[in-house]
Amino acid sequence: MANQRTGLACGIVVAAGRSERMGGVDKVFAQLAGRPLLAWTLAAFKRCDAIDGIVVVASEVSLQRMYEFVREWRFDAKVKAVVPGGATRQESVRAGLDAAGSAAIASAIVAVHDGARPLVTPDIIARGVALARETGAALCAVPARDTVKQVEGDPPVVTGTPAREGLWLAQTPQCFDRELLLKAHREAGNTPATDDAALVEALGHAVTVYEGAWSNFKVTTQEDMIIAEALLRERFASGA
Amino acid sequence: MANQRTGLACGIVVAAGRSERMGGVDKVFAQLAGRPLLAWTLAAFKRCDAIDGIVVVASEVSLQRMYEFVREWRFDAKVKAVVPGGATRQESVRAGLDAAGSAAIASAIVAVHDGARPLVTPDIIARGVALARETGAALCAVPARDTVKQVEGDPPVVTGTPAREGLWLAQTPQCFDRELLLKAHREAGNTPATDDAALVEALGHAVTVYEGAWSNFKVTTQEDMIIAEALLRERFASGA
Repeated sequence: MANQRTGLACGIVVAAGRSERMGGVDKVFAQLAGRPLLAWTLAAFKRCDAIDGIVVVASEVSLQRMYEFVREWRFDAKVKAVVPGGATRQESVRAGLDAAGSAAIASAIVAVHDGARPLVTPDIIARGVALARETGAALCAVPARDTVKQVEGDPPVVTGTPAREGLWLAQTPQCFDRELLLKAHREAGNTPATDDAALVEALGHAVTVYEGAWSNFKVTTQEDMIIAEALLRERFASGA
Repeated sequence: MANQRTGLACGIVVAAGRSERMGGVDKVFAQLAGRPLLAWTLAAFKRCDAIDGIVVVASEVSLQRMYEFVREWRFDAKVKAVVPGGATRQESVRAGLDAAGSAAIASAIVAVHDGARPLVTPDIIARGVALARETGAALCAVPARDTVKQVEGDPPVVTGTPAREGLWLAQTPQCFDRELLLKAHREAGNTPATDDAALVEALGHAVTVYEGAWSNFKVTTQEDMIIAEALLRERFASGA
């Protein structure tokens, strides 16, 4: 490609949430198929050759615990920094972006990923990084399987059924030219966006989409933990 | 309610698919947590007091097998008819609607459900039937958890991020005044719609939405089978 971006690629794993839906337990440390949830997520980044380093964004209160976790689970060779996040996901990503641009890491490409998506694979990450090297912005997503409805009012009533064709559900990783995403965050300021891709879209830069996997879902509820555990055990058992 | 609809309620369980994504195996008969997938689906309708009878729509080729399945798994007291479906889901629902209106069944309310959603519960069905008695049209759905993206082109590029607020993913059951849904199907003719709710929306009749459950997903892939099995075993083990 004419526009190929070279330079290092850094994973920014955002694990600074409050896990309100899981009764205050810090979800990323919850046990899942024999290890903490976040260990599955970080293992995928560790095993991904397209990733040169990892920045973990932790909540202020769990920062110490995160350092210990990274060391205990032997991610410290690839995790270049553990940084405190902000009050919102957007602020947390911004903190990760800054760390990924520091002299010690100096990455040209970032792969922003939700810590609570433990079923991501090295392949999904690598494809995002490769696409971001080409296009500057790559979004992992899956085509909507169910009909999407626009719903309004109380009681809620359907106000529209957009054509299912062309509707995708965004996941992470969302991979970007680091400078581009930084610019998008700066321009957005404190205006909340639904995700990083939306900030880059707002700049007018095209965001290219590639297909992830249904299993790469975000673990939010106890039911999700059951699902994730079943899928991880199956994956582990089959050696895939 | 002023407009309360009385009369019998009939489940229309559509199990006439081809299961192309599962390598030609007839998905509804696939083994799931110790019994055929469809047995879980029908058990929920059997246990639901709001349902007076069930029509099963089967593919032409599996009609005989479906009769035997219904008898073998002791659904024959509540299953009032097994009818052959059509070439499309819409035609299959239409066949079920006709059967649900026959003299022997004569239902005023229908609860149209995908046979391949085995994790539906009696409660989810009952809430849909009650709401359809009030409003004529009730759609089971869940709020979108991920950002929905409008995607176009090749390579695919994001062309829009609709506000996530108010976006729901449609499931089944979709419950209706039988006459209303019949009219909607007649007016649609062979014009394909994404779901039954969309046909009723096209008539200008309001479709009320109620919240289902994430677990009430449609089993499509082998990965879905793993997820469904894990959830059913958990539900069974906890006695819920």
